[in-house]
Amino acid sequence: MDVSVERGAIPDSTAPEPGGDSAEAGCAPQAAPEAARETAPAVTLLICTTCRAPGNDAPPDAQRDGARLLASACAASLPEGVAVEGVAVEGVSCLANCKRALSAAMVRRDGWTYVFGDLSPDSAADLLTGAALLAGSPDGLMPWRGRPDALKRGMVARIPPLFPKETR
Amino acid sequence: MDVSVERGAIPDSTAPEPGGDSAEAGCAPQAAPEAARETAPAVTLLICTTCRAPGNDAPPDAQRDGARLLASACAASLPEGVAVEGVAVEGVSCLANCKRALSAAMVRRDGWTYVFGDLSPDSAADLLTGAALLAGSPDGLMPWRGRPDALKRGMVARIPPLFPKETR
Repeated sequence: MDVSVERGAIPDSTAPEPGGDSAEAGCAPQAAPEAARETAPAVTLLICTTCRAPGNDAPPDAQRDGARLLASACAASLPEGVAVEGVAVEGVSCLANCKRALSAAMVRRDGWTYVFGDLSPDSAADLLTGAALLAGSPDGLMPWRGRPDALKRGMVARIPPLFPKETR
Repeated sequence: MDVSVERGAIPDSTAPEPGGDSAEAGCAPQAAPEAARETAPAVTLLICTTCRAPGNDAPPDAQRDGARLLASACAASLPEGVAVEGVAVEGVSCLANCKRALSAAMVRRDGWTYVFGDLSPDSAADLLTGAALLAGSPDGLMPWRGRPDALKRGMVARIPPLFPKETR
């Protein structure tokens, strides 16, 4: 059984997550492994490529809505006045947030991590706007002011950095 | 208005998270800041201390269910045969997972991060069992086999490490 397909189609939190799946492509420049940690962008936007939008009954082998969202984020232009500098976009095969698909996470280097759900294939600009806000935040938290509504309504969780602890 | 109280009492994802709250105490040994990153435990278990269990209508200034869960995790004995080595327990004022309170996250150093919800004040042993599984995992993922049912049903999200990418 293709567990990841089952997970994408029928959210079931008692089924195992499809751990060990291979990495998905994104649109971030790939640094050499030994240099990657030092040159990581301020924010990495991780988009679940297995997610299907609620009510989508396309065949299992059809392109997933999450994969469409990833492609859109890689191609998207940001709303005027919002910088995308410091944001990398990557796909990941499962964020295990299937109950609230489509799903994405943002990891701020040495800052907070955010998980969002209830997204749509058209959410790329909102995600990039939020990622840019997080990348530019002086305290490593995503500001509430200016955050797209989809990232307010779709808030799933946030996780503090282990270091530093000042913003907890 | 005490936003954190409102968030704990009435989950509302359109209200701002109580960012900037002060750090909560836990039961991990505190290393000096400059040494902390190198000596961090394999897994840090972060328990939201603002959460109230659904239906709890205690006064806002009463001890929160999440704070009880944190205290219990700090005092808990693990089920026989499960090691707690490599696990630190800390409180955090808001994980913004209010829709599925009580809530906790686990961060594996250089591994995956997990968010769990629908917990109870009695979930400490389950959380520590899961944290020990994650700490001992060879690939940085929490194994499904042996995971307490509460951490299967209560799965909210998981986020891959930025480095290495092999387990995505």
